[in-house]
Amino acid sequence: MKVEIIAIGDELTSGRILNTTSSFAARNLFDAGYEIYAMHTIGDTPSLIGEALKRAICRVDAVVVTGGLGTTDDDLTNEAVSKALNRPTLPNLEILSNIRAHLDEITNAPVGELEKLAWLPEGAQVLNPQSNMAGYLLVHEDKPIFFLPGVPSQMKQLMVEQVLPTLSTWHKNHHLTTYQRIFRIFNLPEIEVNRRISSLDLDPDANIGYYPVFPEVHLSLIVRDKKTNDAKKLFKSSCKAIYTVLGDAIYGQNRDSMERVVGKLLKKNNLQLAVAESCTGGLISKKLTDSPGSSSYFLGGVVSYANSLKSGYLGVPTELLEKYGAVSREVAESMAVGVKYNSLSDIGLAVTGVAGPDGGTEDKPVGTAYIGISTSEATWVTKFHFPGDRWQVRTLTAQSGLELIRKYLLQLGIEEE
Amino acid sequence: MKVEIIAIGDELTSGRILNTTSSFAARNLFDAGYEIYAMHTIGDTPSLIGEALKRAICRVDAVVVTGGLGTTDDDLTNEAVSKALNRPTLPNLEILSNIRAHLDEITNAPVGELEKLAWLPEGAQVLNPQSNMAGYLLVHEDKPIFFLPGVPSQMKQLMVEQVLPTLSTWHKNHHLTTYQRIFRIFNLPEIEVNRRISSLDLDPDANIGYYPVFPEVHLSLIVRDKKTNDAKKLFKSSCKAIYTVLGDAIYGQNRDSMERVVGKLLKKNNLQLAVAESCTGGLISKKLTDSPGSSSYFLGGVVSYANSLKSGYLGVPTELLEKYGAVSREVAESMAVGVKYNSLSDIGLAVTGVAGPDGGTEDKPVGTAYIGISTSEATWVTKFHFPGDRWQVRTLTAQSGLELIRKYLLQLGIEEE
Repeated sequence: MKVEIIAIGDELTSGRILNTTSSFAARNLFDAGYEIYAMHTIGDTPSLIGEALKRAICRVDAVVVTGGLGTTDDDLTNEAVSKALNRPTLPNLEILSNIRAHLDEITNAPVGELEKLAWLPEGAQVLNPQSNMAGYLLVHEDKPIFFLPGVPSQMKQLMVEQVLPTLSTWHKNHHLTTYQRIFRIFNLPEIEVNRRISSLDLDPDANIGYYPVFPEVHLSLIVRDKKTNDAKKLFKSSCKAIYTVLGDAIYGQNRDSMERVVGKLLKKNNLQLAVAESCTGGLISKKLTDSPGSSSYFLGGVVSYANSLKSGYLGVPTELLEKYGAVSREVAESMAVGVKYNSLSDIGLAVTGVAGPDGGTEDKPVGTAYIGISTSEATWVTKFHFPGDRWQVRTLTAQSGLELIRKYLLQLGIEEE
Repeated sequence: MKVEIIAIGDELTSGRILNTTSSFAARNLFDAGYEIYAMHTIGDTPSLIGEALKRAICRVDAVVVTGGLGTTDDDLTNEAVSKALNRPTLPNLEILSNIRAHLDEITNAPVGELEKLAWLPEGAQVLNPQSNMAGYLLVHEDKPIFFLPGVPSQMKQLMVEQVLPTLSTWHKNHHLTTYQRIFRIFNLPEIEVNRRISSLDLDPDANIGYYPVFPEVHLSLIVRDKKTNDAKKLFKSSCKAIYTVLGDAIYGQNRDSMERVVGKLLKKNNLQLAVAESCTGGLISKKLTDSPGSSSYFLGGVVSYANSLKSGYLGVPTELLEKYGAVSREVAESMAVGVKYNSLSDIGLAVTGVAGPDGGTEDKPVGTAYIGISTSEATWVTKFHFPGDRWQVRTLTAQSGLELIRKYLLQLGIEEE
C-alpha cells in the first residue's frame, strides 16, 4: 500500500520551521509496513495544494495532509480541498456547538475566528470530535485522505490514535510484514561500515542502507515478506552476520540513543554517575536527563564553565589551572576526581576542551578535548582532537564521553561473568 | 525566480532521518528573495528521481537536488539523472586524479568504490573540485540544476559558498527585493497575537503569517517590492505598528533565541549569571553555552538532580528538603541564593520541578515548577504549572527561567535611563 504525504505551510517552504511532522508520519507509516511514495512540502497557496492533492490521489492508495487547518487567515487548506475536489464547505454542527459551549473557557476571541474550524469540505469525518483538535478524514474515489493539524503534538496524537488504526483495517490483504532494524554505530566511518558489510555478501532480499547521522552512522536492514522467501529467518541470520563484522561499534538499535544505552548499563551495574562539564556546558547532563527515570543512575554535577567554578566546586588546585591551563590532562583528571568525591558518586566523568570558534592556540587548537573518568579503581584521561564547528565539537565531546563510560561498563559486565 | 527543492534518500521517506537540508536550502533561498515553488522528498528510486526532476525543470527556473551522491550502493542520483536527462555518465578527470592522489590518506577502501564519485552526467560542472565533497551544477534547457551531497554540513557549505552566488548572477533582472522579519513571541497564545494584529488593519501588501513553534509563536512580516508600492516604507511602518500592539511579548527578531537575547542583555549590563538546575538537568546551561562567547556572562553552575547535590553544592538545608520537599518555593529560593553565593555571580537562577512522567502528586502534579532568582537586591520565586509531556515541561521551564531573567534585565535598563 502506497502513501503520499503533503505538508502545507509558508513557514515550511521558507525554511523558517523544520518540517518534523512529515518525518514523523513517514516513520510511523513505514514501520507499519506502508511504502512512502513521496513527500511534498508546499506553501499556503490554494491552487498548489489542490494540484498536489489531485496528483497524489491518482497514483497512491492513501494520502496524509498536514497543516493549514487553524483559525488564522493564512490557514487555507479547507478552502483548497473544497475547490480541488469539488466539495463545498459545510458547517460541522458537532464542532460548532462544541466551540459555542466552551467559548468562555477557551479564549475571548471573536466567535467568527474559531468557527472557521467548523467549516469542512462535504463528506469530512472529524477524527476526534471530543477534543478541540482540527483533523478529519475524507474518502475520495474510495481512497482515504487524512487532514491533520500542523501543530506537531496534535498531529502526532491523531496520527497514532486515528490514522494508523483506520489505515490498518482499510486494505487488509495488501498488508505484508516488514522486518526492519537500525544498527546505531559510533566511531567507525561510513565507508568502513560499507566495506565490512559488503564482505558479508548478504542475500539480495536483505536490503541494506547506510545513513551518516552526525556523529553516528546508522545501518538499516529491511527484509520484506514476499511470500516466496522466509523473511523472518533471513532477517535473523542477517542481523547475526552484521554483528560479527561490526561488534561493539554497534552501540544500540532502532531508537536507542547513546545516553539511554549508558543509562541502562549504569542501572544494570547499580552504579551512579556524576558529571563535570566545561566545554560541553551542560550538554551531557541534559542528554542524560532527557530520559525519564534517569535520577536512579545520574546524580547531577557541575557546569564549571568559569575557572573559578573548577576550583570552587570541583577542588581543582589553582596551581594546576595556572601551570597546565584549563584544557589539559591534569585539569580533566582533577575535575573527574573532584566531581566523584564531592557528589559521592561511583563514577565521575569530566570534559574540558576548546569548542571554538575562538580560544584555540597553536598547542591546543579548536577541537582539542580531554575527557577524564574516575572510578573506585582508577582515574584516566583520554585526549581527543575533534573536527568541525562549535556545535560539532560539543556534540562529539559529549558523545565520546558517554562512549568511554559505555566501554568501561561493558568491560565490567564481561569481568562479572 | 521560482526554485524547487528535491531531497533524495530512503532514510528520509522512511522518516528515520529528519530532513534538515531542504529546510536549510529553503530558508537561504527565501531570504535571498527566491520563491520556493515546492519541496519534495523521494526515496532512492531512479525512476521517481527522474520523474520529479523532469517535472520541476518544466515549471521552475532553478532546481536544487540533495542526496544520493555518495559512494555506497544505495546512492543512485547520478544514474537517475543520466537516464532522465539523457546524459551518459563520464568520468571527471580532476576528481579521479584527486581521489587517486589522496587515496592513502583518506582510507584503505578499494579504489572502485571511491571512483564512483568521479562518474558524473555529461556536462556536470563540479562545484568545489579542490575539496573532497561531491556536488555539481548541470545546466539543462538553460536552467541551473544543483546537485548537492545529503550530508548536512557539506550541503550547507556548498549552498552558501556556491549555489547562492551562482544563482544571484543568473537572472539579474528577475530579482526583486523582499523585506522580511520574524517577530519571536513568548507567553502570548497565537490566537491573541492574531487578534491584536488584525486590529491594526495593515496594508494588504504587508503579508502576515502566524507560526506556533513550541514554546513560542513566530509572526512573519513580508513585503515584496512590486515596483508599484514603496515596499521599504511600508515594511518599516508595519514593523512599528506590530510593536505597538505586541510590546515586549516580542523577545527577539529573526534568528534570535531567548538564550542569546538574555546573553546580550547580561553583557550590556555587565552582569554574570550562574544557574542551579534540578528538573531541567543542564538544559538551561546547555542553551546558554550554545553561543560562542557565552563565557563572558555565564559562569556555569550546578545540575543538582539528586537532593544530596542540592545540599552539598548549593547549601540547601536538609531540613528545608525534608519539610517542604525538593519541589518547593523554599528550596528554589535556597538554590538560587546558594548558586549565586558559591559562584560569586551577580545573578543566581534556580529551577526545581516535576518534569514527569512519574513523580507527580496531588499537591504537586507533573508540570509544577518553581523558578527562583537571586540578585544583589532581592531573591524571589515564581510558581508555574506547565502543560505537556516531559520534553515540553523541561522546555517550558528552561524558557520561562530565561524569560524571567530577561524581564528583570529589561527593568534594569529602564531604571538606568
